[in-house]
Parts: sequence; C-alpha cells; structure tokens
Amino acid sequence: MDSVNTKRYINPTFPHLLHGADYNPEQWKDAPEILQEDMRLMRLAEMNEMTVGVFSWAELEKEEGVFDFSFLDDTFDRVEAAGGKLILATPSGARPRWLAQKYPEVLRVNRDGNRAHYGFRHNHCLTSPVYREKVALIDRKLAERYGKRKSLYAWHISNELSGDCYCPLCRQAFIEWCKRTYHNDISELNHAWWTSFWSHRYNDFSQIEPPYADGDLGVCSGLTLSWRRFVTDQTVSFIENEMIPLRQLTPDIPVTTNFMGTFDGLNYSKIAKSLDFISWDSYPEWGVPGGEINEPLAAAFAHEECRSYKHKPFLMMESTPSVVNWRSVCKRKAPGFHLASAVQAVAHGSDSVQYFQFRQGRGGMEKMHGAVVDHFGGPTRTFSEVQQVGHTLRQIDEVCGTESHAEVAVIYDRENAWALQCLDGLQQDKKYLQTVQSYYLPLWKRGITTDIIDRTADLSAYKLVIAPMLYMTDDATADRLDAFVRNGGTLVGTYCTGVVNENDLCHLGGCPGGKLLELFSVRAEECDALYPQERVGVSLGEDVYSAADIVETVWPWKARAIAHYSTGYYEGNAACTVNDIGLGHAYYMAFRDADGSFIEALMRRILAEVGIMPAMPDVTLPEGVVIHERHDDTYRYFFVQCFRTQGAKITLPHPYYDLVSRTYTAALRFLSPGAIVLRERK
Amino acid sequence: MDSVNTKRYINPTFPHLLHGADYNPEQWKDAPEILQEDMRLMRLAEMNEMTVGVFSWAELEKEEGVFDFSFLDDTFDRVEAAGGKLILATPSGARPRWLAQKYPEVLRVNRDGNRAHYGFRHNHCLTSPVYREKVALIDRKLAERYGKRKSLYAWHISNELSGDCYCPLCRQAFIEWCKRTYHNDISELNHAWWTSFWSHRYNDFSQIEPPYADGDLGVCSGLTLSWRRFVTDQTVSFIENEMIPLRQLTPDIPVTTNFMGTFDGLNYSKIAKSLDFISWDSYPEWGVPGGEINEPLAAAFAHEECRSYKHKPFLMMESTPSVVNWRSVCKRKAPGFHLASAVQAVAHGSDSVQYFQFRQGRGGMEKMHGAVVDHFGGPTRTFSEVQQVGHTLRQIDEVCGTESHAEVAVIYDRENAWALQCLDGLQQDKKYLQTVQSYYLPLWKRGITTDIIDRTADLSAYKLVIAPMLYMTDDATADRLDAFVRNGGTLVGTYCTGVVNENDLCHLGGCPGGKLLELFSVRAEECDALYPQERVGVSLGEDVYSAADIVETVWPWKARAIAHYSTGYYEGNAACTVNDIGLGHAYYMAFRDADGSFIEALMRRILAEVGIMPAMPDVTLPEGVVIHERHDDTYRYFFVQCFRTQGAKITLPHPYYDLVSRTYTAALRFLSPGAIVLRERK
Amino acid sequence: MDSVNTKRYINPTFPHLLHGADYNPEQWKDAPEILQEDMRLMRLAEMNEMTVGVFSWAELEKEEGVFDFSFLDDTFDRVEAAGGKLILATPSGARPRWLAQKYPEVLRVNRDGNRAHYGFRHNHCLTSPVYREKVALIDRKLAERYGKRKSLYAWHISNELSGDCYCPLCRQAFIEWCKRTYHNDISELNHAWWTSFWSHRYNDFSQIEPPYADGDLGVCSGLTLSWRRFVTDQTVSFIENEMIPLRQLTPDIPVTTNFMGTFDGLNYSKIAKSLDFISWDSYPEWGVPGGEINEPLAAAFAHEECRSYKHKPFLMMESTPSVVNWRSVCKRKAPGFHLASAVQAVAHGSDSVQYFQFRQGRGGMEKMHGAVVDHFGGPTRTFSEVQQVGHTLRQIDEVCGTESHAEVAVIYDRENAWALQCLDGLQQDKKYLQTVQSYYLPLWKRGITTDIIDRTADLSAYKLVIAPMLYMTDDATADRLDAFVRNGGTLVGTYCTGVVNENDLCHLGGCPGGKLLELFSVRAEECDALYPQERVGVSLGEDVYSAADIVETVWPWKARAIAHYSTGYYEGNAACTVNDIGLGHAYYMAFRDADGSFIEALMRRILAEVGIMPAMPDVTLPEGVVIHERHDDTYRYFFVQCFRTQGAKITLPHPYYDLVSRTYTAALRFLSPGAIVLRERK
Repeated sequence: MDSVNTKRYINPTFPHLLHGADYNPEQWKDAPEILQEDMRLMRLAEMNEMTVGVFSWAELEKEEGVFDFSFLDDTFDRVEAAGGKLILATPSGARPRWLAQKYPEVLRVNRDGNRAHYGFRHNHCLTSPVYREKVALIDRKLAERYGKRKSLYAWHISNELSGDCYCPLCRQAFIEWCKRTYHNDISELNHAWWTSFWSHRYNDFSQIEPPYADGDLGVCSGLTLSWRRFVTDQTVSFIENEMIPLRQLTPDIPVTTNFMGTFDGLNYSKIAKSLDFISWDSYPEWGVPGGEINEPLAAAFAHEECRSYKHKPFLMMESTPSVVNWRSVCKRKAPGFHLASAVQAVAHGSDSVQYFQFRQGRGGMEKMHGAVVDHFGGPTRTFSEVQQVGHTLRQIDEVCGTESHAEVAVIYDRENAWALQCLDGLQQDKKYLQTVQSYYLPLWKRGITTDIIDRTADLSAYKLVIAPMLYMTDDATADRLDAFVRNGGTLVGTYCTGVVNENDLCHLGGCPGGKLLELFSVRAEECDALYPQERVGVSLGEDVYSAADIVETVWPWKARAIAHYSTGYYEGNAACTVNDIGLGHAYYMAFRDADGSFIEALMRRILAEVGIMPAMPDVTLPEGVVIHERHDDTYRYFFVQCFRTQGAKITLPHPYYDLVSRTYTAALRFLSPGAIVLRERK
Repeated sequence: MDSVNTKRYINPTFPHLLHGADYNPEQWKDAPEILQEDMRLMRLAEMNEMTVGVFSWAELEKEEGVFDFSFLDDTFDRVEAAGGKLILATPSGARPRWLAQKYPEVLRVNRDGNRAHYGFRHNHCLTSPVYREKVALIDRKLAERYGKRKSLYAWHISNELSGDCYCPLCRQAFIEWCKRTYHNDISELNHAWWTSFWSHRYNDFSQIEPPYADGDLGVCSGLTLSWRRFVTDQTVSFIENEMIPLRQLTPDIPVTTNFMGTFDGLNYSKIAKSLDFISWDSYPEWGVPGGEINEPLAAAFAHEECRSYKHKPFLMMESTPSVVNWRSVCKRKAPGFHLASAVQAVAHGSDSVQYFQFRQGRGGMEKMHGAVVDHFGGPTRTFSEVQQVGHTLRQIDEVCGTESHAEVAVIYDRENAWALQCLDGLQQDKKYLQTVQSYYLPLWKRGITTDIIDRTADLSAYKLVIAPMLYMTDDATADRLDAFVRNGGTLVGTYCTGVVNENDLCHLGGCPGGKLLELFSVRAEECDALYPQERVGVSLGEDVYSAADIVETVWPWKARAIAHYSTGYYEGNAACTVNDIGLGHAYYMAFRDADGSFIEALMRRILAEVGIMPAMPDVTLPEGVVIHERHDDTYRYFFVQCFRTQGAKITLPHPYYDLVSRTYTAALRFLSPGAIVLRERK
Repeated sequence: MDSVNTKRYINPTFPHLLHGADYNPEQWKDAPEILQEDMRLMRLAEMNEMTVGVFSWAELEKEEGVFDFSFLDDTFDRVEAAGGKLILATPSGARPRWLAQKYPEVLRVNRDGNRAHYGFRHNHCLTSPVYREKVALIDRKLAERYGKRKSLYAWHISNELSGDCYCPLCRQAFIEWCKRTYHNDISELNHAWWTSFWSHRYNDFSQIEPPYADGDLGVCSGLTLSWRRFVTDQTVSFIENEMIPLRQLTPDIPVTTNFMGTFDGLNYSKIAKSLDFISWDSYPEWGVPGGEINEPLAAAFAHEECRSYKHKPFLMMESTPSVVNWRSVCKRKAPGFHLASAVQAVAHGSDSVQYFQFRQGRGGMEKMHGAVVDHFGGPTRTFSEVQQVGHTLRQIDEVCGTESHAEVAVIYDRENAWALQCLDGLQQDKKYLQTVQSYYLPLWKRGITTDIIDRTADLSAYKLVIAPMLYMTDDATADRLDAFVRNGGTLVGTYCTGVVNENDLCHLGGCPGGKLLELFSVRAEECDALYPQERVGVSLGEDVYSAADIVETVWPWKARAIAHYSTGYYEGNAACTVNDIGLGHAYYMAFRDADGSFIEALMRRILAEVGIMPAMPDVTLPEGVVIHERHDDTYRYFFVQCFRTQGAKITLPHPYYDLVSRTYTAALRFLSPGAIVLRERK
C-alpha cells in the first residue's frame, strides 16, 4: 500500500508503531504471579514493547563487580514470549548506594559548594572518572549479554539527563573547556566576559570557578553562559562515554536518551547530534483550568521540535495513561484525553505511544504515578483507554515511518533562552517560551506542519521563518537570516532581537544589531516594560489591539509601518513594520501582543502572502479541534484531534477513509476528547 | 455533694482547679520590690499555682558543677507564703552557654548536616550522652532539694519538646533502631522501604543515613516514616532518662510535659504513655477573620484529644491572658474571650487555666507576649479579666476531677498524618487535620463529648467511630475497625482510606485495602484531584451539594449508595455509601465536602440512627454558642460557651443552677463572648 | 546678584551645580574612537563632571603591587580637556580576583558561617587587616598621583557601603566592641541583653558570637542591636582607614561616600559625621501604578534627610536618565519625568544631578541599566532629555550653595527602625518608614521645608517636631523632647512610642515610658493589631475616619482627647489627644490612619496653630504638583515640580521670573511631567 523507500524507520527490523511502557520487574522479584500476570495484561492492552533497566543498577550489580543478570534475563524471556520488543536502558540514572559510599566523588557538589548526600536520582558528577568507568563497565556487560537478542529494539542512555556539578573535578574540566574555547588566551576571555566590569578581571585560567551561588552566579553572564555550554558539552561527553561499548558491540542497535520537551537546562540540539534517534517524555497538564488550548499547543510544540532535531520520526518514550504524581494538583485524564494525546503524538511524528509506567510500584516516591496497571490490578477505566489506544495504533500501523514536511520554521533557541535568563533588565520573567508558542498557535490551529529549530539550523528549505525574541544573534545567524530573506523568504522578528552577540556582549550601533538592522530596516530605540495590568493600544487599519509587558519604540528606515501605537507617549510610533528586501520580506513586531489577536491577524496575512495552506483547508474547525498530517508517496494521513471536553461535530467536504473503523465518512462526531485518523490517496 | 470515688484528680493532695502561670523570677532577681508585688497580684487574681524553672538552667548551674538554688528556694518560699502550689520544670529546654561551648555535641545538627550555633531554645541533640548526663544530674539536684516540699504539685519535663537532630550520634542511634525494627535483616528493610525503586538498595545497615535535605529526604518514604518514628522514640527515651531521678526520689509527684495540641512533629500517643498526666499549651487565634467557628472548634478538638490520651482530666498548662507575640498579626483577645476560652478548657476536661506568663520579661524575644502582669504593672483590662476567671474557677471548683464520657470517637492519627505528608500525589496539601475537624464540627456544635484517638486505640466503648482519610491502615487497625462494626458499631470512613500499610507500601488488590474492602463493600477506583475553584455536584435525595479538592469514583458491591455525583464524567457514580454488615454499619464518603453542609446532613442522619443526643437537647443555640458537659455520680455540669462578639440570648427549657452567680436561671444573656456554668442533679 | 557669604559650597573652588555621571572608560580601553566620542557627547549634554574609579581596582593594580594608572591618567586628561571636573572614587567597592585568591580573609563570611566565594561587589570583610592595608595603599597611590590636579572636585570612598561579615576577625572585633560598650563587665551585658531569658547568660565575653542565622539571630535583640551598631561602627572605621592617606595628602579635597536614601542597614547619621559632605543615589520607581504621589514623596523625603545630616547642600551622586535594570518591571521614565526628578533634587538641596552611568557597558550585570549614551551611541530621547536638564542646570546655576530653612522636623531613626525590626509582636511588618512618610506628606504637599533627623538631633531650632513610632527612647531623647515642648515647641507622637530603652529593654511603669508619660499625659494600655482588612472608626468632631493595622487604647490623664474611637470595644476611648505643657503642646496619635485623611486634618490644624505657611501660600495646586524653595540673602527660588503624566495649569498670584526662559510669567503650563524654576527678590 505504501512505498517503503520513502519511510524512515527508527529500527528497520521492526517497522511498526510501538505501544509500550517503562517496566520494572525487579520490584516484583518475589511475586512470580504478578510477573506472569504482567504479560497477560500486556497482550490484552495490545502492547508490543517494554523499556527495562531504567534505575536497575543496584539490582544488576549488587556489590562492586558482582553482577547478577537473572531478573533481566527472565524479563527478556518473558517479554519475548509475549511477542514484545525491548528498549534497554543503561542504569546510569541512579547509582547504587555502595558506589557512593566507596567513591564519594560520584556524588554531585551543589551550587553552594557542598557535596550532596546519597539520595535522589540523576545526581552523579558529570566528570568523575570513577563514575564513567563504572558506567562503561556495566554498559559493556549489558551489551555483551543482550546485544544479540532479536528483541532488543534500541538502547536508552541513562534517563532524563539534567543538572550540573560544582566539584573540583568539574571545575578543572571547566577550566580546560575555557582554555579551549578562548584559545588559551586569558585576555580573550576577559574581553568576552567583559570582566572590566566590577574589577572581575582574571589574571589566568586557574582563577576560574563555576558560578557558585555565593560567588559569581548572576554577576557575570559570560561566565554563566560558558558554564551552561560546558554543562551541555560535558553531558554529551558523558553520553559518548556510555556509547563506546554500545557502538563497539551493537553497532546496529539505535541509541537514544529521553528528552524533557522544552526543558532548557541543556542544549538538546547539540545532544541530538550524538543520538541515533530522538525520544522524549510528554506530560501535559490535561484538564488544567485555562489550559484547553495552551496544553495541547505546548505538547504539539514539543513534538514538532523533537521531530525537527533530525527531521524524522521519534518516540514518545514516556507519557501517563492517567495521572502524574508530582503536580500540586494531580488531575486525572478525563475520558478521551488519552486517545487524543496519543494520536496527537503520532500526528506530529512520534512512532510510539509509551508510558511511564507499566505497573505501579508499591513504594517509592512515584508509587502514586499513573500506570497501565494499578495497585488494584484488575480492570479499570485507565486500562480500557490504554486498550483503545492499543487498538488504534494497530489499526493505523501503516503511518509508521511516514514523513512530515514543513514549509514554516519557528526558532526556539536554548542558548538564546539562557541569555534572556541572564538578562538583568526589562522584566524579571522574559516569557521567551510562551512568546515563541504564541506565534506557533496560528500555525497549530491550522494544522500547518512546523519545524521548531534552533538559531544554527539551515533555513533554506522554508518559505517562512518566525524568530521571536532572538535576543542573542551571532554573525553567522544574522547572515543566515539575511540570506534567507534576500533569497525570497519571509521572516518575522520581534522586539528584543539582535541585542547581544554569542558572548552576551551588546551589539553597538543600534538594535537589532549588525546585519539585522538593515534586514528589518528599523532601529529599536527604547524597549519599555509595562506593569502587569498596563496596556498600550495598537491600531492596525480600523482595528484596535493591545500591547502588554513589552513595548518597543522603533524608527523605521526603509521599512513600512503596518500598525501604530495609539495610546500614551508611544502614540503614532510604528508598532509593526515590514521591509521588502531582495526577494523576500522581513516583518518586525515591536510589542508583545496582549491576547494573541494581533498575531492571528498578522499571521493570516503572512500565510496568505507566502501561500501556505491549512492541512485540510475546506473544513471549519471549532476551537480545540485540530487536524495535522503525515504522508508518504501514496497517501496523506489526517489526524483529527479533539481536545474539547464537550466534544464536537465536524463535516468534511467529502468522505475520507477512517483507518480505525475501516469505513468512509464525512461526518465526524466526538462526544468527548478523542481522535480519528483518516487516509486519502494523493 | 459529689462522691469522691468517681473523681480522678491529677494530684489528689490538692483536689482543686488550678489557676496559675509560668513564672520567671530569675529575670527580676535585682528587683525585690517586683518579686514582692508579684505575690500580692497573684492573690489579687485568685491564682493558686506557679510553674517555675522553665529555662532556668543557666541560673541554677552558672558554671559546670556550680549550683546555686537561692532564687528557686526564695521562689518556693514566697509562693508557698502566698498559698500557692508549684509545678517545677526541669530545665532541659534550653542549655546554658557554657555547656554548648564545652561540649559541642549537645547542639543539634540540622537536616543539611551542619551543626547549629548556640542560640534558640529546644536545640539539643536527642542522643548526646553528655546532655543526658548533665540533665539527669540537675534533675536529681532539683528532686533532692524540692521533692519533699508540700507545695510541689507536679513535675514538668523540659518544654514543648520538638525537632530532630542529624548528628553522627543520632545517626548511629537510628541505625540501631533500624536493626531492632527490622530484626537485623537488611532484606526485610529493603522490602519494607521498597528500595528496588531508583536503585536505593542497602547492602547493610551501616549505609543508613538520616533523611538529609540534600539526600534521601522526600525520596524514600519508608526511611522518612522510620525516621519520624525513631525521633518520637528517641524523645520518649530522652524523657525517660529525665524521669529516672524523679521517679526514684519523688515517686508520688506526678509528671507531665506540655504538648502543643495537634502539632504533628511527634507521635504524642506514644509519649503520653510515659507521662502521669497530660498538659498542653493552647493558643487559638481568637478574633481572626473567618475564625469565629474554626478557632473554638480547633481548640475544642485539641482539648478533647488531650483528655482522650488518658481518659482523664488534664491541665491547660499555657494560654495567653491577652495576646501572643509570634503571629503575623498579634490580635488581643477582645473582651469576654478570655473567660470563654478558660471555661471552654474546663468544659472539655482541663482542671486548670494556666498562662504563659505571669509577668512580662523586659527583654528577650517574648517580651511582648501577653502576661497577667504587663510592663506597666498596674491595673489593666487584662488583669481584670484574669481576676474574673480566677473568681469563676473558685466558684466552680467542684468540677475538678469530674469525668467526660464519650460515645463517639474521631480518629486523628499522627503516623497517618506523616504518611499523607510523604505522599507525592493527589494534592500538595492533603488537609488531613482540617478534614478530620470538619467531621468533628457537627459533634462540637451539638455538645456531644467526643474522644479524639489514634488508630491503635480500643474502640469497644463507642457507638460511633469516624475515621477520615485513614490512608495508612495496618492489619491490626483493619481488624479492630471490622470487629467494631460487626459488633454493632457505626463507622464513617472517607476517600483515601486503606491505601498503604504501616510501611507506606500500597495495599494490592483494591482500595480501601485488605479487610476494609469487604467492610465498606466498595472499591475506590480513581481518586481524582480538583483544582482550587473546581466543584463537582453531589445529589442526596432532592438536595444538591458540592465536592471540592478530592473526588473518588467508587464501585459499590454490597453497599448502598445514598448520594451520587451529578456533574462531569463522574455523574451517576456513587458519592456516599453505607454497608450493613454484622450488627453495624459502615459509611463511606467518596469526596471532600466543599462547605460542610453534606457532612452536617450525613451526621444528623447517623446521630439519629445511633441514638446520640446533644448535651442539652431541648435548647436552640445560635451559631457560635455551644454547651458541653462534665459529670460525676451526682451532678451534670453544663458549660455554656459564647464565642460571638455580638453576644447572644438563650432560653433554657427550665431553670438551672448557675454555679458562679449561685442563682437559678433559665434565661441566659451574653453581651459579648463569655461563659456560664450550670449544674443539674442527675 | 547673590551675596556669596551665605552660600555653602561643597567645593568652593567650583561653585557650580554639577551635571555629571559615573564613567568607566576602563571598559573601552580598546576603543579609542569611543573614548573620543564620549567627550563630544559630554559637552553636547552640557555636562561638567565625571565620577571615575568606581570598581577600577583590577585595572589599576593588575597584580599585587603592580600599578598601572595609564587609563586613569588619560581619563583625567580627556575630561579636563572637555572642561570637566572629576570625582575620584577609591576602588574598595570590588576587590581584584588576585587579592581574594591570595588572601581569602578579605572575602566575607555570611550569616550561616560560610565564607563566600569570589563574586559580586561589596563583599569584603569589614575588619580584615590585609584588606585595609591594600585599600590604604592604593588610596595613597591615587592621592599622590591625582591629589594635585585642579580638576579633582572630591573623593568618593568606595561605593554604596552595606552588609556585614561573620568571620573570626569580625567576631573578635565585635567581642572587643562589647567589652568597650559594657565596660568590660559581663554582668552589665547580661542585664542589658536580658540573658536571664532562655538561659542565655554569658559567663564571659569570649562566649560572644555574631547573630548567626542558626544561632542567636532573632532570639536576643540585645545582641542583634549591638551587632548592628558594631557594623556601623566598623564601617565608619573602614572609611576612616581609607581617609588617612586622603586627609594627609589632599586636605582640601572634600570626601563623601554615596548613601542609599532610606536604606536602614547602616546608621547613616553616624557615618555622616566622618564625611565632608553627603551624596546619595536616587532611584524612584517613576511610573509605577499607584506611585503618582508616593514615589516623588519618598524621593523628596530622602533628599531632605540627606540635606539634614549636615544642614547644607549635598550631591545626588547617582540617578538614572532613563531606566534601571534591577526591578521586576524596569519601566522607562516617561517624557518629562527626567526634568521633574532632576529639579526636585535641586529643590531639596542637591547641588548636582549625576547619573549612573555615562555610557552603557557592553557586558556585565548592569549592561541594560540606563545611561546618558546607550549601545546605539547616537541621538535618543534620553539624550535629549539629559541635554534639557543640562541646559536647565546651567540656567539656574545661581541656586548652587543656597540654603533651605526648616521649621519642622520629622524624626526617622535607624536604631529605632532596627528595634522595631527586632520586635516580635504586634504585626510582622511594622511599616515604620511608611508611617513616618505618611506624616511628611502634608508637609511635602505644601512645600514646607522639613528636616528629617534622627532621635539624637538638636531640636531647638524647630517649631514643630513629628516623631512617629518612636518605639526606642533613651533618657536623653526623652529629655530633649520634653525640653523642646516645655520651651514652646509642638510635638506629635504616636502609638508605639517610648516602649523600650536603648538596650531594647521595655520601660516599666507605663507607656510611653519615663518622662514621655508626663509629656503626653496619656498611658497607652493596649496596643492592638488589626488584620489587613479590618478597620476601626475614629470620630473627630462631625467627621469619621478609619484606623488600620494598629489601634492603641490610651488613658488620658491631663491630656484632652480631640478624637475618639467609634466602633468595636474601643468605642469612646480617646484616639488622639493633646497635652498643653509648659509653653508647648504634645499631640498623641493612638492609631494608624487608614488613608492619611486624619493626618491631613490634624496637620492642617497644627500648622495653623504653630504658624507655618506653605512655600507659596496663595496658589492652588492640583495633586501631583508641588512647589519647594531655597533661598539666599537676596532671593527666594521656587521649584515648581509637576509629577502628573497629564500635565497641569497653574496660575500664580503675580508674575515671577522664570530662570530658564528668562521671562516673567504668572501662568504655568505643563503638558507632561516637568519643572519650572522661579526667582523672587526677598
């Protein structure tokens, strides 16, 4: 039905959508009846994958050098017997107690300079040679033992990597990093970090310390930015250390680690380069008051970013079938949200729906986290909804590996986020991510496939690039944006663009700095902050809109103003401009839209200009219902997602083939949240 | 008039209500005229007791081994001459500076692992052999010197014990505690603490650490629960060390320590067993907006709990005659509140009204705390109100030692509170205490004497037991509840019942777990959390109520649903059920009542069913006026308490004898808050 | 035109208003074109001063003992060539990295007892002999090199001194301080600190520790107060160490350090005594919602205080021409606010308008702080407004050195602020400063020149003294207030007056304590706290007002009640009294005015009684417009300040000479905030 050659599978030996879960049978070693029941329920839920080994180190190596793989052998046997695949995690996310006791260097030192006690997970030094050695050893053992099993689908390095360590080893590694970065020239570093401010000059590299909380944290943004880049690089180095035995022993098994969506503690773009495929853990707050649009929007945004890292399908490695246990209010997914969220993931490029966790633990801090099987163990609403997702995934299995093609890109850049966080001024909360998402909203509503990229990405394939608050712009980025527009692209920039360079030094000579000044052909003179309730009027033709939070006064040069401020002393000043340059156009938004209505109007105009159409143009959708698509050479697949508690009715222009019910239909009806997957021959 | 044999006196040598205060003459050693005036004012206020020695260590032992009891000798002489009794406190609540300087081990180590500097009070290591030795020594000296004085009414160990210590000595004691508790078997501990989660397995007991803030705090609830149990046990051990010389030298002097009401840092039930009688410090926030009912309710609740520990009268060891100094808003008691609060204490079983403090200190952090005598030193409104209480207590002295008989018990269990605090999930604030008190409200309003007990208490004497949110249920508790109902009792349970066992491991097989599943004959499938403003409708007959915070969906088996949800996807699901089993009935409330009106309706029904009557059934009371009772073989005593600022008029069915005015009256009139004590022959 | 002999110049060699800025050319050493442009722009803005050397240490002494003054030489040359004067800062506000690396003792130890890492500014130990030696050395080098340059206008010691250090050196210095203060008699200290409370008795001085956060902080107010006095004294000592070489080598160059307005971390009154003139940094939050009156009021209050320290003109050493970068919302000055705020400063006695900073740095945490020249570097609105101020200052230059004469004083006492902060009781937030300012408001609105003084100041020159919440009163203060009134003065005191003595020990025998009891002739019995929304009525004649936060019940003795409480149980009690005693009058306000209207009525009455007139009595001013004055022997200068965004029209009784426009006018018109300076011959 579909031509395989256009499809990109994560593991070509198993070209199917995964329906799986994190699985910790080591917690039930004394309960063989439960281990047996697990397999029955796995099949009952139409699941075909289990992720094992996450946090299993103490079970696998009970004492230093004493390995015992019996439970994992048994798990492989049982899952294989049930027809399932396994993703095997390396156990480095949580170290055994004996390891910390014998080698305290493996425990992190916090930003106050104190070494943590044993506890929590994800609390290992990024640098410790002992930790790296011990991790590599057990990874090698795992690869030797399980690398040849046909059921091994992929490797999963550690778990939700994050955080930093301020120990002497990390300090020394950071000093070496600085030497490399600044060409072993302390005066280059002094200039880059602008240490003439507050007498912060370094005499030599040995004086460099991490940004301790009672030291230079918050004082020297050059140091802070460098530290965060170092932490990402050190995390990459840690991952690559883990990959040495895996690459050597299992070169054909793809490797991932699970990201945490828009988490900005690490620069995922750099980490992605080391991985074979992307996976991530998705936990929207379904049902939160006021989140009817924002929650599915934010989830879609993160899905699209995960697909964009490698422009190919990814896995949704974790999600909850029901409820999380770590929010201040842990609301359960109301009926239908589970199917809607599962299909949403696939719509944006996920080739899996996976859960944390298969079976709830009896103890530990996640014992109340939702799971496919709860402490009751019998039939539940949650289990039924998981079965429904299992059935749906089986019916739509042919979408596995199909592609998503974006003509629009939105830039969301981690280093830019860091620079904005370092910015003392304007407003305490810069709202960078929310602002970026507010420009993504009109695209998401229309089902327009959008790449979410960082500022270093290639732009040549896009018609439209939206770069909100691109505060940090190095020359290469400015060049790329400039070339993109001159070659016919349309660019949307905003206030707070082109303020600093890659070292967080302000551009001189006017903002947006360097080449961007000519590209947008406006100079931003004053970027003003408004108090929370303050509003400034904006007029666009006959219509009046509101600015909030941030209002820039700009001086257009060649650009045309298409909207103006209408109140306060800003009155009459340009509020939104467009510059026609080369073959393209550069829009500049000088204010933050108070409610998104101006952005909607602007995007409607721009999408029409550049000729980008909704996924299914002839359908009227109520708020909270969206349609996104994937395709291959033969078919287009439409994923109709309803996030409305009250449901919806939608009339299609003509009948489409419903992959789940295997019937043709033009009238879609949702009684609650849910999803339908349609297919159309191209 | 009364038959003595039914009365239970705290100290039979002085069978009278106490009217007393904390007294610190060591602060006024240089002012003999003040010390003399104190005794005049004590008599003027009709006070008959002084509590001395609290925090006096540095005065009594000015250097190591150099004792000087002169001020205390003088104080005993003066108070005796004024006709007063003394309660003598051991001085362990605050150590002298020389002790901390010479033996740093006596200072606590905090949860970050750092040893505190000298300062504050209540900051001694619970384990330090030096501290225990030094405390025992001065206790012995005190017992030797004052044990034979007729005026010595009771011993008061330390003061408001609380807190924990993370020092190496405490760590080692905790390790020993774990060995005893888990039979020296690390695998038993590993199972109980579910250490297979996150690779937290212990190889041996030597690896155990306290729950450091940057260690296992919040990660391993088994550890945290064990630590809190250990802290209570170590506090008991500390108290018992203090009692050795007291028991030996003064076997007839009863011993107490002052509790802090519903404080949950310690398991008071266990501590109570070591004491001869209970005393506590009562500081309601009289006058707080919205507290018109809740504040007297909470005070009554704590009084009833203190009486229930030993089912006999207790002392209200501290209260303020006017104002505290440690709230964000320190509001003074408006006129009348002092009498109302004093009589409230007696109504619930206190045989004293005592104050912190007799005379305000000139300096120190409590210098602005209210006192009987303030810095002015002359007549004040406060002093007048204290005199009024003194007069009232003298008039009603015959109630001393009389009993309170409860047919209803409400379970408020400290270990259950801890388990709920450890619970990551549902809602951040579990509101356990407020929920328990919301079930106590209908009882308090009706003047129904209620025991407040923990989950280990004997239930056989009750007709009705209310056990809200009994999240932690071990087998013994479930057995006791089961037997109680089968033998004819009525039980009320709620959502979040029977979820974990005594180790905080979830019950498998359905909630409420184990025997409770059959007892209530419902299975709670989903326990959902609502956002703060969310409400779910509940219908009971024709009436509609509201659920807030927590809504469980339950599947009744043999139980009958008496209310149902009426909105959302919960619609039609049972919201409240009753199961008739054996000779009794088990009610199950599946939701949190948004405003208490459902609970009021439910309790009205249940009280009628079990035949429990208000203290004075034929009187109509306005909100904020309650009548509670004590009795002996001959008389019933009715304590009419008015907490309404605007006062109230009440008409009794027939005249009662007013013990204070010594007249018969059927028409009670309050112009402000206040209290009247009536007597009726049985 | 003016008679010079009545004028008091800061530096008589340059009897002109300064228009200047902090200037950091060391950040631009590699950009000679920028350094050159700076001078062009300085002249363009009519600026005549640059403050240099703040935080330049690492530039001047790149390694220990290796000095390099080339950039500073060059700066002096360039500024002189541009016709400017220089204020030279000593560099002690931020130490070089090599100094901290080699001598860790120079880094502060925080209140937890941990030594900070290198970072931030203002983080040196106050005691370290090494730091003092190194500072004195570089100060000497600066004085040697620049002391003879004619362009040197003044010395500026360090920068915004603040904070404390808990290191062993400071502890030892504190012990010595305690020995001196308490006559080497530990029993005197024990009494003063009331250490009989909580067994806090000291055996000897060696036991004294600073108030560590996990020690005696918040426990012993005697210790805390002593510590804060010590910190001020140690700061004075630090300053005086810096002044040794300056005094020796440049006896004619006046010395200052920049204060931070009403900052209460140090007792500025004591520091002022060591300085030749006062300067301060003024950063009102212009434009904050609700701040239309409060912000200019607070700025005026701080200006008047700075003038009052020495009863002579001061400098406004820092202000922003546009925006700060450290608020949660950094709002830019709307058009006109800059001129209004500049003229406001001069109106209250500033002989300068100076900015932080001249040119924005490219990096560092203040890179977004407003400056005369921004990163653009070309013409901006801000630069135009700076030019307008420059022009205005040049036109009104003759006001330099003129005086301000106050008949009213308001007491705002730092030690009293500390004592109130130490007060556990009443309300958490005592609102001392806001309360003091609420009494200043009626004076400010009327343009009545007011001295802001501490409790030790001489009162003999005033007709009216207002002393709100003078909680701490030693005998000398009480004597001074008593003599002031008996000699014919009018005093206004309030609730919370005369509660403690200079050691924070409560006065015995009634409040307000000691002599004040007779002076006010009322006894304050109960000082009650109200919850935030609570109000108590106050009747004054026919009018009804509202009390909030704090309500005292007082018993007048000889005093007459002029207002009474009208609600609650306070009803009928005196709320405001006046006592005629000797030749004067003592008013006592027993409550906090909820909205200022009672204070306005009271002050109207009192100002009429004492015969104090508005600056320009016959003019009606809209809210937000004020007129203040300075004068010399010949002229009165009226500074009309408009803080209304919407502007204002004002009609004067007759034409005045407008110094800026050089015309006579009686009709003033403001289209936005702004200022006009008028002159009238006496």
